[in-house]
Amino acid sequence: MNMKPLQGFGVSKVVDSDNPNFKPGDFISGITGWEEYSLIRTTELSRKIKPNDIPLSYHVGLLGMPGFTAYAGFYEVCSPKKGESVLVSAASGAVGQLVGQLAKLHGCYVVGSCGSSQKVRNKLGFDEAFNYKEEPDLGAALKRYFPQGIDIYFDNVGGDMLDAALVNMKIHGRIAVCGMVSEKNLSDPQGIRNVYNLITKRIRMQGFLQSDYIHLFPRFLEHVISYYKQGKIVYIEDINEGLESAPSAFVGLFLGENVGKQVICVAHE
Amino acid sequence: MNMKPLQGFGVSKVVDSDNPNFKPGDFISGITGWEEYSLIRTTELSRKIKPNDIPLSYHVGLLGMPGFTAYAGFYEVCSPKKGESVLVSAASGAVGQLVGQLAKLHGCYVVGSCGSSQKVRNKLGFDEAFNYKEEPDLGAALKRYFPQGIDIYFDNVGGDMLDAALVNMKIHGRIAVCGMVSEKNLSDPQGIRNVYNLITKRIRMQGFLQSDYIHLFPRFLEHVISYYKQGKIVYIEDINEGLESAPSAFVGLFLGENVGKQVICVAHE
Repeated sequence: MNMKPLQGFGVSKVVDSDNPNFKPGDFISGITGWEEYSLIRTTELSRKIKPNDIPLSYHVGLLGMPGFTAYAGFYEVCSPKKGESVLVSAASGAVGQLVGQLAKLHGCYVVGSCGSSQKVRNKLGFDEAFNYKEEPDLGAALKRYFPQGIDIYFDNVGGDMLDAALVNMKIHGRIAVCGMVSEKNLSDPQGIRNVYNLITKRIRMQGFLQSDYIHLFPRFLEHVISYYKQGKIVYIEDINEGLESAPSAFVGLFLGENVGKQVICVAHE
Repeated sequence: MNMKPLQGFGVSKVVDSDNPNFKPGDFISGITGWEEYSLIRTTELSRKIKPNDIPLSYHVGLLGMPGFTAYAGFYEVCSPKKGESVLVSAASGAVGQLVGQLAKLHGCYVVGSCGSSQKVRNKLGFDEAFNYKEEPDLGAALKRYFPQGIDIYFDNVGGDMLDAALVNMKIHGRIAVCGMVSEKNLSDPQGIRNVYNLITKRIRMQGFLQSDYIHLFPRFLEHVISYYKQGKIVYIEDINEGLESAPSAFVGLFLGENVGKQVICVAHE
């Protein structure tokens, strides 16, 4: 058989290379195969990792695409102001945990929705967190945490939480639409019923992809590495060992089972 | 009985006044009662109409709140660029007909959806128009008129048309959410199913009210009066005579029966 391996974003150690930019022993982050040894032919997205005291796996999370998604989405899409009220869904996930921490550093009041509220409150330093699975009425939960309304909703899930947020937004609120993990079936998606709030509350709701902001990547690395080294941000990972753990971990993402960035460790350094 | 009359936006002739700003014989536009003679106590929104060669009734349409909604929404919310493709729904309505004409003047390709496509094409000068009631598949209709996709959707109706537009938007498209006349029952609204397109296409979807842009009102009047006097824009009205015609005309708005700004003429000058 001559099948192309499934590809994904990972950190690799170069064992052999005819590309002068990547030498044996170098660590790179970028697209690689879901396999123990990969032949990487296209290196447009490959980035050599500079040696520093940051865990290698963070280069697929905090310092990789998810981290940059949080950074670009929060600063460039949410138009945050000090003192504003911020809701983050999937708050313990790869993106959400950084969004909430950046919002705290920006002087915002931050509430996270997730499947593990304790960890988000204690380790990530959000003002509040709640477990959406324990809330029979999401609208009432948001009303409880945001009696004056929500200025910014960083949406990683879509569905019922988006509908509940729309009703609880403040006038001139902003919704950054980053993910819809609650929509398990995009060929028959659930309808969002409260869209008319966009008019009465003059809400801006904006979808985005980090790739549109790639010119900001160097600034992102500089800022986030600096915050991390100062101990101002942390990053939670949910690491599974071995390629064989990937399928169940993938399914777990959609069930909200992971706490932190889901990482598969294929091989140790 | 001492009931307050229903109020609405209208043009009135002053018959008596103790307000030095408004003298008998003056014409004013603003909030008035649905009645033949009204006692106007609050004049914050009242504006004296300067005598010119524009029909009085235009001051509740082209030069009133609907016209200003079109102006503010198109220029301030849609971020239009010359050559872009624009869809306007309720295109023969009070707001939509001006949006499309402003878009044409801006150098855009403009398609209107309405209940009377002929009038929109012939009188308003849109590039194309279609009758949504004759289209069994709105998505297919939009694909036909926008084979390359939609840059700007000025949404006056919500519902199925919004869903169809979401699927047919271009990357970095903009949706100005102005009205949801298709949502007859806001306590049990229809869901918008294709919201995930906001992410893949990085769409900005923004609700607005003209009142947030009121500082632009003088510029709006200047521009639109100038365009009108140069014959560059027209305005279609659907005038019913007599207070007693108001209820059926109001219902007609929701059935898409009006062609042009719906006006009730309570009294002639």
